[in-house]
Amino acid sequence: MSARVDLNSDVGESFGRWQLGDDDAVLEVVSSANVACGFHAGDPSTLARTCRSARENGVRIGAQVSYRDLAGFGRRFVDATQTELTDDVVYQIGGLQAIAHAAGSVVSYVKPHGALYNTAVHHEQHARAVVDAVAAVDPALPILGLPGSLLLEIAAQRGVRTVREAFADRAYQSDGTLVSRREPGAVLDDPELVAERVVRMITDGVVESIDGRDVRLDVDSVCLHGDSPGAVAMSIATRASLVAAGVEIVPFT
Amino acid sequence: MSARVDLNSDVGESFGRWQLGDDDAVLEVVSSANVACGFHAGDPSTLARTCRSARENGVRIGAQVSYRDLAGFGRRFVDATQTELTDDVVYQIGGLQAIAHAAGSVVSYVKPHGALYNTAVHHEQHARAVVDAVAAVDPALPILGLPGSLLLEIAAQRGVRTVREAFADRAYQSDGTLVSRREPGAVLDDPELVAERVVRMITDGVVESIDGRDVRLDVDSVCLHGDSPGAVAMSIATRASLVAAGVEIVPFT
Amino acid sequence: MSARVDLNSDVGESFGRWQLGDDDAVLEVVSSANVACGFHAGDPSTLARTCRSARENGVRIGAQVSYRDLAGFGRRFVDATQTELTDDVVYQIGGLQAIAHAAGSVVSYVKPHGALYNTAVHHEQHARAVVDAVAAVDPALPILGLPGSLLLEIAAQRGVRTVREAFADRAYQSDGTLVSRREPGAVLDDPELVAERVVRMITDGVVESIDGRDVRLDVDSVCLHGDSPGAVAMSIATRASLVAAGVEIVPFT
Amino acid sequence: MSARVDLNSDVGESFGRWQLGDDDAVLEVVSSANVACGFHAGDPSTLARTCRSARENGVRIGAQVSYRDLAGFGRRFVDATQTELTDDVVYQIGGLQAIAHAAGSVVSYVKPHGALYNTAVHHEQHARAVVDAVAAVDPALPILGLPGSLLLEIAAQRGVRTVREAFADRAYQSDGTLVSRREPGAVLDDPELVAERVVRMITDGVVESIDGRDVRLDVDSVCLHGDSPGAVAMSIATRASLVAAGVEIVPFT
Repeated sequence: MSARVDLNSDVGESFGRWQLGDDDAVLEVVSSANVACGFHAGDPSTLARTCRSARENGVRIGAQVSYRDLAGFGRRFVDATQTELTDDVVYQIGGLQAIAHAAGSVVSYVKPHGALYNTAVHHEQHARAVVDAVAAVDPALPILGLPGSLLLEIAAQRGVRTVREAFADRAYQSDGTLVSRREPGAVLDDPELVAERVVRMITDGVVESIDGRDVRLDVDSVCLHGDSPGAVAMSIATRASLVAAGVEIVPFT
Repeated sequence: MSARVDLNSDVGESFGRWQLGDDDAVLEVVSSANVACGFHAGDPSTLARTCRSARENGVRIGAQVSYRDLAGFGRRFVDATQTELTDDVVYQIGGLQAIAHAAGSVVSYVKPHGALYNTAVHHEQHARAVVDAVAAVDPALPILGLPGSLLLEIAAQRGVRTVREAFADRAYQSDGTLVSRREPGAVLDDPELVAERVVRMITDGVVESIDGRDVRLDVDSVCLHGDSPGAVAMSIATRASLVAAGVEIVPFT
Repeated sequence: MSARVDLNSDVGESFGRWQLGDDDAVLEVVSSANVACGFHAGDPSTLARTCRSARENGVRIGAQVSYRDLAGFGRRFVDATQTELTDDVVYQIGGLQAIAHAAGSVVSYVKPHGALYNTAVHHEQHARAVVDAVAAVDPALPILGLPGSLLLEIAAQRGVRTVREAFADRAYQSDGTLVSRREPGAVLDDPELVAERVVRMITDGVVESIDGRDVRLDVDSVCLHGDSPGAVAMSIATRASLVAAGVEIVPFT
Repeated sequence: MSARVDLNSDVGESFGRWQLGDDDAVLEVVSSANVACGFHAGDPSTLARTCRSARENGVRIGAQVSYRDLAGFGRRFVDATQTELTDDVVYQIGGLQAIAHAAGSVVSYVKPHGALYNTAVHHEQHARAVVDAVAAVDPALPILGLPGSLLLEIAAQRGVRTVREAFADRAYQSDGTLVSRREPGAVLDDPELVAERVVRMITDGVVESIDGRDVRLDVDSVCLHGDSPGAVAMSIATRASLVAAGVEIVPFT
């Protein structure tokens, strides 16, 4: 049986007059689209266009939920109470569900965005808020997150399915965690190298760590980027290499 | 068979630190609650509390959709394109649907708020946007609006159910339309008189117009207010008079 | 004495993560920069960067005031009361004044943006609100607007200085008014033709109307665009043609 | 020479349709009004009304600057960069300066609100951002804050004047710091006791700590509240007791 992997990327992050990313290009590359939900980006008409395009490309839609922070694009920690955050996430999922439904599709998973993604790795109340929100809306919706994060741990405890993602363009420590963006070499920018690494992640289940060791990775989905022409090119190259290596690009199951 | 009527009122219109209206009192009076959806009022935690309280009181939940205008409380016309407005309304209904679902209830109808309510009486594109949004989310959701409005006319053409409302505290012309708020006598403030008028609307199907004639009104629901202590008192008095007159207060069917 | 003209363009219209326009290129072309004030675009850090860059380029700063409408980029009429709009405009000018001051510059004029610009051509209350706001902040600040507009008329009555602008890329009727954007031929896209027209506006004081007649135009400033690569190229070409024709590019006096 | 003290309180914290606090009552009690600046509360028309009322009451106006967070009323830490926060504070001060100027008054000091107030006690980058902003707008504007805070320390180092405030209704430790709100007894609610304590703070320069010792306090201003009927009553009682004790209520000098 051939290897298979899901590719995910952020889309729907324009807002009104402001365009961000080349969603059409990205939606030809990925199998899962993390669509913004309006709190860090994504006015409803942007979301509607993105959901229609995802459906036309046969790409699954996920809710990319965030802190309420348009000015900071959801990249700043906001010290919300657990209740506020739970309710904010429920509302965002619901908003996107209706938009996706109107576009002839459905929301199939949830992925926190930006500062919420990073915070939910270790902040129990905010991790719990995301899980509580998903469980309240639909406990059958999987949560996409970082392997080893508190978010996925709490989700698993609550019986919410978890999807573990790897990052195509990030360096890894030899313990399988990400090299911090503050360290040199944390982000890779050579499309060929990135493509090669992703192929190895999927076909061999390993990635070479920043200090040269092979590290085992359990990956359900690989995160690509599309918010710059270079990122789009890298994503296209990665997909092409996977296909050339006989890896099937399919939504996680 | 006894007469029956639905009573509706706006709730969920607080926002963060700012409280507005006595929702607990209102939810003991009405059978249908027009819950704000976040665009003119209603942060998600307010909506969640309101939906739980509505469920506990056996009150049906409607989506009170609006132009995107927190600073203006949705009371200012915003010249959105038809597409923008359709998508904004879809998103708002969906946000509230998820919140209502998490609270153990559902959204059962849609009512435009403030400037959108008034605009959809005569503005074809905005009326159509609301109907399109409802039809896209769930064509079985009725739209609550003004009898004779373009909104209800377009809804009927599209096969979306319409619910005609009367206003407890507003004066009527002899042709059955409302006296403009700019005219003297447009708004009634005597709780007893208001209660009496509503009883007559329901039991006899008529209201006395501002020039003293009996006017036929077809009413599926009566709109009450709860955003001031006086308004709450008037709503309580109206309900009591209806009950005393043998009118059953039940959600429209 | 040589001919001279002011060139103005919109800048500072990014917002947080979202970039719009090539402000650095534009600030090398114009003599007056209409800097957004946060209500349709322009987070404070964007405004600060823009004001510093304007100062470094010796470009004068104007306050580009708008309806409060980030989602609509200030391009949608918002039916604010006159008082609301006056206060909104005062606040926006003040916000930019402090940012400009911190950047070592000052706000030297006011220009309404988008829907407010168009509305203030004919809507008395909104035109008056803008003039009242400017008069309240500093009656010595000129208002830049459309010749013949109610805005400039009311400003003149109030003793607020007016600056009349022409549009480099718009077609004119033979009565000197703009051809509506809904008409074919309303917007010109040939950089050479546009540059030639602007040179003629300034050196001869005439523009050829859409039906081929020479029309007299009184122009204190010419509006250029910078929100697309094509617009920037056209602006650069226009400036070069003016300079080649011996026209001095200087702020209006 | 008689004792004298400044009383300050938060005002201008309504937003659009939502009213908060009894500003008219508060402005008859205090000598300094911390007026919201639009980022946690205070639409421009609210600010304009508040500034006019402050001027009529001879009350000095301060800029109550905040994180950008309407939904959280500025009570949630937002992890802004130092630059973002500096620019946000500059913009807010400027917005209020123009509103105050239009009302015939001026902004005379700056006080951080809510989470920013608490964060600037210990968070160097955010404390520095506030001080940088004030220094950029007008280094002669004093900053009102907590004695011993990093905010006042950095301000002093930068040559920005500092105003030390005490809290009328808060318990103190024997080292002169506040008892955390999470501890029992942290907030006092007996108007007479509060009034008595404030009188002693000003006439004797001491406050009794939560464990019964007299603690020396250096106070330039006392913070009162007005956001509930009980708070207003307590503020009125405090002022009356000060006046009865011969203390003059005057703006800090």
